[in-house]
Amino acid sequence: MSQIYVLNGPNLNLLGQRQPEIYGHETLADIEALCSEAAGPHEIRFLQTNWEGQLIDWIHEARLQAAAIVINPAALTHTSVAVLDALNAFDGPVIEVHISQVHKREAFRHHSYVSHRADAVIAGMGVHGYGAGVAHAVRLIG
Amino acid sequence: MSQIYVLNGPNLNLLGQRQPEIYGHETLADIEALCSEAAGPHEIRFLQTNWEGQLIDWIHEARLQAAAIVINPAALTHTSVAVLDALNAFDGPVIEVHISQVHKREAFRHHSYVSHRADAVIAGMGVHGYGAGVAHAVRLIG
Amino acid sequence: MSQIYVLNGPNLNLLGQRQPEIYGHETLADIEALCSEAAGPHEIRFLQTNWEGQLIDWIHEARLQAAAIVINPAALTHTSVAVLDALNAFDGPVIEVHISQVHKREAFRHHSYVSHRADAVIAGMGVHGYGAGVAHAVRLIG
Amino acid sequence: MSQIYVLNGPNLNLLGQRQPEIYGHETLADIEALCSEAAGPHEIRFLQTNWEGQLIDWIHEARLQAAAIVINPAALTHTSVAVLDALNAFDGPVIEVHISQVHKREAFRHHSYVSHRADAVIAGMGVHGYGAGVAHAVRLIG
Amino acid sequence: MSQIYVLNGPNLNLLGQRQPEIYGHETLADIEALCSEAAGPHEIRFLQTNWEGQLIDWIHEARLQAAAIVINPAALTHTSVAVLDALNAFDGPVIEVHISQVHKREAFRHHSYVSHRADAVIAGMGVHGYGAGVAHAVRLIG
Amino acid sequence: MSQIYVLNGPNLNLLGQRQPEIYGHETLADIEALCSEAAGPHEIRFLQTNWEGQLIDWIHEARLQAAAIVINPAALTHTSVAVLDALNAFDGPVIEVHISQVHKREAFRHHSYVSHRADAVIAGMGVHGYGAGVAHAVRLIG
Amino acid sequence: MSQIYVLNGPNLNLLGQRQPEIYGHETLADIEALCSEAAGPHEIRFLQTNWEGQLIDWIHEARLQAAAIVINPAALTHTSVAVLDALNAFDGPVIEVHISQVHKREAFRHHSYVSHRADAVIAGMGVHGYGAGVAHAVRLIG
Amino acid sequence: MSQIYVLNGPNLNLLGQRQPEIYGHETLADIEALCSEAAGPHEIRFLQTNWEGQLIDWIHEARLQAAAIVINPAALTHTSVAVLDALNAFDGPVIEVHISQVHKREAFRHHSYVSHRADAVIAGMGVHGYGAGVAHAVRLIG
Amino acid sequence: MSQIYVLNGPNLNLLGQRQPEIYGHETLADIEALCSEAAGPHEIRFLQTNWEGQLIDWIHEARLQAAAIVINPAALTHTSVAVLDALNAFDGPVIEVHISQVHKREAFRHHSYVSHRADAVIAGMGVHGYGAGVAHAVRLIG
Amino acid sequence: MSQIYVLNGPNLNLLGQRQPEIYGHETLADIEALCSEAAGPHEIRFLQTNWEGQLIDWIHEARLQAAAIVINPAALTHTSVAVLDALNAFDGPVIEVHISQVHKREAFRHHSYVSHRADAVIAGMGVHGYGAGVAHAVRLIG
Amino acid sequence: MSQIYVLNGPNLNLLGQRQPEIYGHETLADIEALCSEAAGPHEIRFLQTNWEGQLIDWIHEARLQAAAIVINPAALTHTSVAVLDALNAFDGPVIEVHISQVHKREAFRHHSYVSHRADAVIAGMGVHGYGAGVAHAVRLIG
Amino acid sequence: MSQIYVLNGPNLNLLGQRQPEIYGHETLADIEALCSEAAGPHEIRFLQTNWEGQLIDWIHEARLQAAAIVINPAALTHTSVAVLDALNAFDGPVIEVHISQVHKREAFRHHSYVSHRADAVIAGMGVHGYGAGVAHAVRLIG
Repeated sequence: MSQIYVLNGPNLNLLGQRQPEIYGHETLADIEALCSEAAGPHEIRFLQTNWEGQLIDWIHEARLQAAAIVINPAALTHTSVAVLDALNAFDGPVIEVHISQVHKREAFRHHSYVSHRADAVIAGMGVHGYGAGVAHAVRLIG
Repeated sequence: MSQIYVLNGPNLNLLGQRQPEIYGHETLADIEALCSEAAGPHEIRFLQTNWEGQLIDWIHEARLQAAAIVINPAALTHTSVAVLDALNAFDGPVIEVHISQVHKREAFRHHSYVSHRADAVIAGMGVHGYGAGVAHAVRLIG
Repeated sequence: MSQIYVLNGPNLNLLGQRQPEIYGHETLADIEALCSEAAGPHEIRFLQTNWEGQLIDWIHEARLQAAAIVINPAALTHTSVAVLDALNAFDGPVIEVHISQVHKREAFRHHSYVSHRADAVIAGMGVHGYGAGVAHAVRLIG
Repeated sequence: MSQIYVLNGPNLNLLGQRQPEIYGHETLADIEALCSEAAGPHEIRFLQTNWEGQLIDWIHEARLQAAAIVINPAALTHTSVAVLDALNAFDGPVIEVHISQVHKREAFRHHSYVSHRADAVIAGMGVHGYGAGVAHAVRLIG
Repeated sequence: MSQIYVLNGPNLNLLGQRQPEIYGHETLADIEALCSEAAGPHEIRFLQTNWEGQLIDWIHEARLQAAAIVINPAALTHTSVAVLDALNAFDGPVIEVHISQVHKREAFRHHSYVSHRADAVIAGMGVHGYGAGVAHAVRLIG
Repeated sequence: MSQIYVLNGPNLNLLGQRQPEIYGHETLADIEALCSEAAGPHEIRFLQTNWEGQLIDWIHEARLQAAAIVINPAALTHTSVAVLDALNAFDGPVIEVHISQVHKREAFRHHSYVSHRADAVIAGMGVHGYGAGVAHAVRLIG
Repeated sequence: MSQIYVLNGPNLNLLGQRQPEIYGHETLADIEALCSEAAGPHEIRFLQTNWEGQLIDWIHEARLQAAAIVINPAALTHTSVAVLDALNAFDGPVIEVHISQVHKREAFRHHSYVSHRADAVIAGMGVHGYGAGVAHAVRLIG
Repeated sequence: MSQIYVLNGPNLNLLGQRQPEIYGHETLADIEALCSEAAGPHEIRFLQTNWEGQLIDWIHEARLQAAAIVINPAALTHTSVAVLDALNAFDGPVIEVHISQVHKREAFRHHSYVSHRADAVIAGMGVHGYGAGVAHAVRLIG
Repeated sequence: MSQIYVLNGPNLNLLGQRQPEIYGHETLADIEALCSEAAGPHEIRFLQTNWEGQLIDWIHEARLQAAAIVINPAALTHTSVAVLDALNAFDGPVIEVHISQVHKREAFRHHSYVSHRADAVIAGMGVHGYGAGVAHAVRLIG
Repeated sequence: MSQIYVLNGPNLNLLGQRQPEIYGHETLADIEALCSEAAGPHEIRFLQTNWEGQLIDWIHEARLQAAAIVINPAALTHTSVAVLDALNAFDGPVIEVHISQVHKREAFRHHSYVSHRADAVIAGMGVHGYGAGVAHAVRLIG
Repeated sequence: MSQIYVLNGPNLNLLGQRQPEIYGHETLADIEALCSEAAGPHEIRFLQTNWEGQLIDWIHEARLQAAAIVINPAALTHTSVAVLDALNAFDGPVIEVHISQVHKREAFRHHSYVSHRADAVIAGMGVHGYGAGVAHAVRLIG
Repeated sequence: MSQIYVLNGPNLNLLGQRQPEIYGHETLADIEALCSEAAGPHEIRFLQTNWEGQLIDWIHEARLQAAAIVINPAALTHTSVAVLDALNAFDGPVIEVHISQVHKREAFRHHSYVSHRADAVIAGMGVHGYGAGVAHAVRLIG
């Protein structure tokens, strides 16, 4: 149970390719490396999907495997009660990460269903938000 | 066409495990038994998925196979126009069931897209809502 | 204390006469029979009034006499905090029943003050909603 | 015309019995004593009803009998324009009293129709709000 | 069935006494005379009550006795779904009358539940609104 | 100054031709006759325009010529502050008339800028609303 | 710890000078006397400031010195989360007082951040609201 | 890169079968033929899915394969930020097509997330909207 | 009756001159040519006005002359119930065209009164929206 | 191009005659004199109309003739997107002037479409707002 | 009492240094000079503060010293009821000035508490708004 | 210019003393140590105030002294446009930190004016949010 799940929602597979003025030039691989480093002795399970159902299945899997979840739900942040409900069924710490500073973008990006459950929320630190999120998860599962 | 489809949305696979103070201790297997009993001569097709697309596909399948649908759309209740549209394409009775009394929970759980289509809505009766829903479906397709 | 109160709000005395396309052809007498049958060993006290004050007095009476309340507050559902407050002073189960599927009707029928208190809510099952409501009350008062 | 009417709305007959964590353990009889004491030379007419129509009739009666009204409209506070209109037809001081601190409760208890007319509003002082209200009425009718 | 019911809601018994700058100096007796004159061969049944339940009972009575209803629901205009539902069960013409021009008063007086059903609405013509309302009812049942 | 201006807004020239299920079969000529009859000794100046500017000019003209204005602003009811301001500059009685019962139609027809100024409002009486409006104007300029 | 802090927000130093039709003719000195009398054996610390920061500092000071706070936050009532947060850090009773009946004034005066914390709220009793507030504080710390 | 992707969201596989009074009698096959004809020398890749994740994957695929996207997101129009974000990552023209005139239907169909990105929007032209959309795409990539 | 009216609202006379980054470089003359071409055997009557009253008069004229209307109401789209009402009195097809993609512009441009009536809506196709609109009109009157 | 257009919207022709408590006693002629004085070497073209279409035509004319526009759109301020769009097509400075302090009047006068374009807004300075507006225009075109 | 107070709120000390594209290059010193010039025989007291409490104290001081107040409340415009209340206690003219055209900026800058009191409001004239404001104050205190 | 300002708003001086279930047991001194450690070679200037004016003054000071600002505006987050405007005048990175997860608390804590400017936002990481914030600031000024 010492794994940390790092879950990524829709369109994050394009990281580094799409809209770099918003999301930067780093890729998911860069983020995975950054997370592993921040995780210390903990193992990282690093996943991305464009499918809400897959994300929910992974969160259910995390109930059995993971001590903490660091999640960037991407667009599902704003629209998915199902992801929120899945996280509500997870007992360990949940850290919500956004690469961009969502509160400076369109109004519909200002509300997060996931924030109803998340223990901490980080936005606008670019890929370094993942590092900070994993480090905080490590601290909490200490 | 005498089957009754009983469809369950995201996270209901965890029933009995997650948040029992809200959802109780019964499992989906208990509910399936309860539905079969309530269905009398009708066959129950009992399904659960965390994937919205799967739910829609099953509703389409029901158009050809089922006389009625009893559905607990779970979190999709509040967010999925696509499930509503699928149900709009089904001709028989549709019964919407919620295990918890959703109107006593967060405000975003008070609105249901599925209620735009459902012939009846049952909330807060726990797993017995399924029994009442199936019994009512039987009555309507009588 | 083994009585179940079945309370009916304004205009339900016209049941079977007014707007049958919405409310059906059954009368209150039919519903009372249906409730008695569903109540098993429990006695039903079946009442209707067009007067909010009377409804509140009966709920107060139920505090001393009844193990459960099944209530169709009709139009008062949407407007009466006083009925809600009376029900808040009742300790046993409260089941809210609506004959029509209120969520498919005018927007002002979508909100229920009584739902702030009700343990379960049933809408759109026609007069059978009473049967299901009484049966659930019986189950809860065990 | 030196009477002071102290009027109580729906469910206040249950005072001391229902939800003491909100409304305390005192009864209406305790409040009546407290009001009489605060009224000094003035006579108190102390009334309670669960019926809006009765409350309106008493306010009309007060037009002829009373120098001031102290009123706890209870649930009608939030829903009754009719009580407001009756009070609008009364010329003397009107003091609105709530036992609980309504602004810390559900949002629908934050708005008061009666406050459109009341000269003073007291909330959250428990039964002592009545004492303060009557004392203020005495002061105003000097 | 040639009677016309003219129904008056809460506080209208004070007409001529309360707030004459809003409601004028005429009394209900003046209005009844005015209605009789306008009704021609039709008999007027002219009633007033401060009790919502009574108003509903009279509307139910009108289902059996009256060819048309002219109603000034007063404060209940803005708050009573129960009166609306009672009128929905009446088959003949319904004319809604307000003595004052409600749209120039407080915002909560701008919405009328009764207008969801009324065939015609007259506001601000003082007591003459009744005359015009009865005359129109006569025309419609003509 | 004993003229009464009867002003009609956009599309009313089509009366009797367009959407008779909403607006009836009478034409503007029928209404003019009806107004003349209701006006008794007063002269009617009966006008219609599809142009807001024209309507305003006529209201200005009425300031010098008319004792009262009866106006059916049609669609401008809901959108024209300019017509309201013109009427605000008129000193005599203003009666607002709508042929259909606007409160039973689309939500955007429920608000009237003209009602901020009108002394009386009549809706849903068909062409007879004009007659009642002119009769009331006559009464006011008595 | 038997002191009672009576704190006054912005512009209350002008009491008796500004807008007497709203705030009356008494001055802060009159109120202080009134409070001392109501406080019985308890010492009053009576303060006024136009500076939000000062008000917060005094509330912090009260944490160490006072058994209760009676506060008229004046305009800060409606705008200051910081004052609310300071009061949230105080353990004893908090009584909120307004000289005028704020619910009859502009809409922006109807919401109070301080009411999220206050045990009791008094509005419209003029300077006597302070007396009633202090008396209630004495009762609670009794 | 001269392909044009024509993407169809949930329930469009039922076209021609469900609710023909809204969606008409043509099928997806008819639309595909119509698109090919409109595309001239360009190849059409014509796809339908009930799964949001699949739709996103296809949009990502289109980044590498397509010069333009014509999309009927169906129910996802109103609920999917994820589809919007996927389209935001596509550089060519995006044409949004709706078979029915969505602005005449339920209010929740009036808002489109996809319209935040689409270069053009066509609604209510039935299946011919696709033809017009493809033709416009051809023009833009011309 | 084989004419097609193509109507243009305020400021469209400046097309090609004002804000070409929004509206492009084509002029009304270009659009008229484009419409004639799309109209095939049908005659185009192509008109522009800055005056709402004129636009309404032309729509009335179209009732007698035209088989279909293609209309770009420009700014009146968002503010004119009168234009909507005029179109409601027209029996043939109505196609609403906007040169720019209005849903990507200011919020007040997202609502269209004309869309309550239009059979189809086209936005963002530049001047080609007219061509598509006329072609669709031809198809419908076919 | 050194002309300054001073444009006046509906009802301003009545200036000095209507509601002097709001608009003062000066007339348009007084304002024109005041503007000419403020304009120094620049020529003033001073116009008023009650017709929106006329106002738009003059703004178009100003595109060719004027270096700046000073406009009091009167009631059109709050309702006319068409006037806004016309001004959007004008390149020089636009100064918006209101004689009364609109923010102290009815809520619907608090929003201005023209303010989306205006470089400066002046309200409540009476007729002197025009002088200040013209002076500022002179400064900007300096 | 012939002084004119010119008061400046938070961050205006940075004028000329911060965001010159919004606020221009002039400094407070330039504005003070401009005000003195506009004030003619009147003495200017020119003050700036970042502290709300200080601003209120100066307004109170002005009650004794000043014939008029010209105020740029800067950010406090939108958030401070306390500044509004202080100005409500001032008897002379109050002119509200904003350097930028606030209605073209973020939505939260469109509402001004100070406008509830100000006799005139000037926005978007840059530093010249102060000159116009002082000139108008001089005119009013004539 | 290599200093990093760490600024703390109202009530944070009580950290460790007030509501430890929300804010934890660490004190400001602990946080300052944590920040110094995270700052590496950069000097920390660590400040707290309950006075908005002071906070603004420090932000202005930072314009001359600091390379970055890490700020926990506490209650001012939700109410102070003045702090936002001060930060808008600062050129370097701004990191907004909240100790608690504000999005799980009262609704009025969900909106942040400071987020309109902040480059990154961290909430719910307890005092470690400061460490992460300073570390990110160091990275940005790298």
